[in-house]
Amino acid sequence: MSGRKIGLIRVLTTDNRELLDLHGRLIMEFFPGLDVRSECIPDQPEGVHDDETEALAIPKVVALAEQMERDGAEAVIVSCAGDPGVLASKGRVGVPVIGAGRAAAHMACLLNRPVGVLGITEAVPPAIAGILGGLMVADRVPDGVVSTLDLMKPEGMRATVDAGRDMLRRGAECLVLACTGMSTIGAAAVLRRELGVPVIDPVRAEAAAAWVALG
Amino acid sequence: MSGRKIGLIRVLTTDNRELLDLHGRLIMEFFPGLDVRSECIPDQPEGVHDDETEALAIPKVVALAEQMERDGAEAVIVSCAGDPGVLASKGRVGVPVIGAGRAAAHMACLLNRPVGVLGITEAVPPAIAGILGGLMVADRVPDGVVSTLDLMKPEGMRATVDAGRDMLRRGAECLVLACTGMSTIGAAAVLRRELGVPVIDPVRAEAAAAWVALG
Repeated sequence: MSGRKIGLIRVLTTDNRELLDLHGRLIMEFFPGLDVRSECIPDQPEGVHDDETEALAIPKVVALAEQMERDGAEAVIVSCAGDPGVLASKGRVGVPVIGAGRAAAHMACLLNRPVGVLGITEAVPPAIAGILGGLMVADRVPDGVVSTLDLMKPEGMRATVDAGRDMLRRGAECLVLACTGMSTIGAAAVLRRELGVPVIDPVRAEAAAAWVALG
Repeated sequence: MSGRKIGLIRVLTTDNRELLDLHGRLIMEFFPGLDVRSECIPDQPEGVHDDETEALAIPKVVALAEQMERDGAEAVIVSCAGDPGVLASKGRVGVPVIGAGRAAAHMACLLNRPVGVLGITEAVPPAIAGILGGLMVADRVPDGVVSTLDLMKPEGMRATVDAGRDMLRRGAECLVLACTGMSTIGAAAVLRRELGVPVIDPVRAEAAAAWVALG
């Protein structure tokens, strides 16, 4: 493989290579010219799900990004909508460090219409909220969904569509998915088909951003 | 061809089909799943190059975007870094209307580093300046370049690289090309190779934004 080298960071510790490579494989399907190597941070089998686990993750993400740059990565993707470590990488990592949350939010800004943010955490990730500003008119967690595993059940997907529809009623005219777990189950396509509005998928957004940044 | 239909608007009037299709062909090479049909606005053989020609172009762009939506386009790209008609399309066109300038600026924001804007017009397009805000630390027109034709001469490309280098000296750590004519001559790749910084190409940026918006 001789594509442009990208390091992709998962903030969920796993030795399941298939799970680890999930986002990277999607990105290489989208952009055959990109060669994505995925790694995860150590000792966080439950990922990043609150302030404490985020604080723990940040220095690990920065260290891994530095390592990836030393190993030849031309860009680093932090494949989590909370963007842990993206700001902290500034000044430590020379290549572009692209966060899924920031990428999705900037793509949504381009549509210039009211946005509903669909996630699985109570609070919208601060970077996403900050970039969207007044464009963000609603946010929701689907009923009964506490992890991406719940999304894979039929009732989880139904709840996701219902939450999206609720935000459209409240004025949203497009949706941002604030969870990369929603990318791997294809939630964006289902939502778009059911609701008829643009839906910004964070893995597609981070992939597109990396592709543009590498030129 | 059965890809997702995109209407691409050139703000330069031409009956030269090859010239008209230049950006659309690039986008379909990048994204084989997109089916881009290009059209130009009428009666502006010199394109959009000042306030007066921009004011003339805006209603024509909106009318063409409306027509493209009626004809089945799922998104419209205004392939000019000045984004004429993008804001004016709001409320008139239901599908996403993506401007090259806004797309490039949002992609640059993602890099979160000081930006130099390289264009061929005296003033940086207002949408680009507004989105970049404090990230924009310099802007330049290459010496001796008054149209994209000048860029195609060896001395035009040399002047472009010199202008980019000058902005790096003034603190820029990445470049945004504020002219889609620079995309068709491959200026981004030359600048990246010569200067070693990320260079945001507006046609790649608009293509990536449309691809993400259509999901």
